[in-house]
Amino acid sequence: MSTPTPPACIFCRIVSGEIPSTRVHEDEDVIAFRDLAPQAPTHILVIPKVHIESAAHLSPENEALAGRLLLVAGEVARGAGLDARGYRIVTNIGEEGGQSVGHLHLHVLGGRSMRWPPG
Amino acid sequence: MSTPTPPACIFCRIVSGEIPSTRVHEDEDVIAFRDLAPQAPTHILVIPKVHIESAAHLSPENEALAGRLLLVAGEVARGAGLDARGYRIVTNIGEEGGQSVGHLHLHVLGGRSMRWPPG
Repeated sequence: MSTPTPPACIFCRIVSGEIPSTRVHEDEDVIAFRDLAPQAPTHILVIPKVHIESAAHLSPENEALAGRLLLVAGEVARGAGLDARGYRIVTNIGEEGGQSVGHLHLHVLGGRSMRWPPG
Repeated sequence: MSTPTPPACIFCRIVSGEIPSTRVHEDEDVIAFRDLAPQAPTHILVIPKVHIESAAHLSPENEALAGRLLLVAGEVARGAGLDARGYRIVTNIGEEGGQSVGHLHLHVLGGRSMRWPPG
């Protein structure tokens, strides 16, 4: 379920171009850009252009978009040369999940061995 | 892209029921069950019934299925009472991602505050 864009949503402002970002992917529905506080040599965020608060706010009407996010995550990882080494995809929901921006985003992390547990 | 089931795939054997699991969800395309080595008070795995090696092996024909996995992850988290507290969804790809079973699976982790970085 997408909701009207909150005026202060940082990621909506990145989508609109009001806030600059280093984009590595853009299509009709999704953009991907580099995280400003990278936790691995490659750390890319994949987000829907529409404002959806988190993965917990996805509804059946968003199923294809949700799938597209995962596919784009794989594509940007491939573009970053991570396919042979491996990588991790993470999305945080709410406070205990550690979600820092209330606009659904997938983290793509790679370029080092990721540890377990995942935080 | 789904590939023929490798005879030894543990998760395919869980799908078939040959190996028992504590299932918390099942539909036509997806099952979810409790991780045997939980890393948080709630730790559930969400997997497609068809054998897809990892998120890196998803193709556009799997887009709806990939989205369904994310939606089911949200549903099982809701069922576990995690919506208000928050949680984390993780999928590992390949060696540096820490993938331990070569059958695409989403980890749903919650019931404690997840740390950053995510491993």
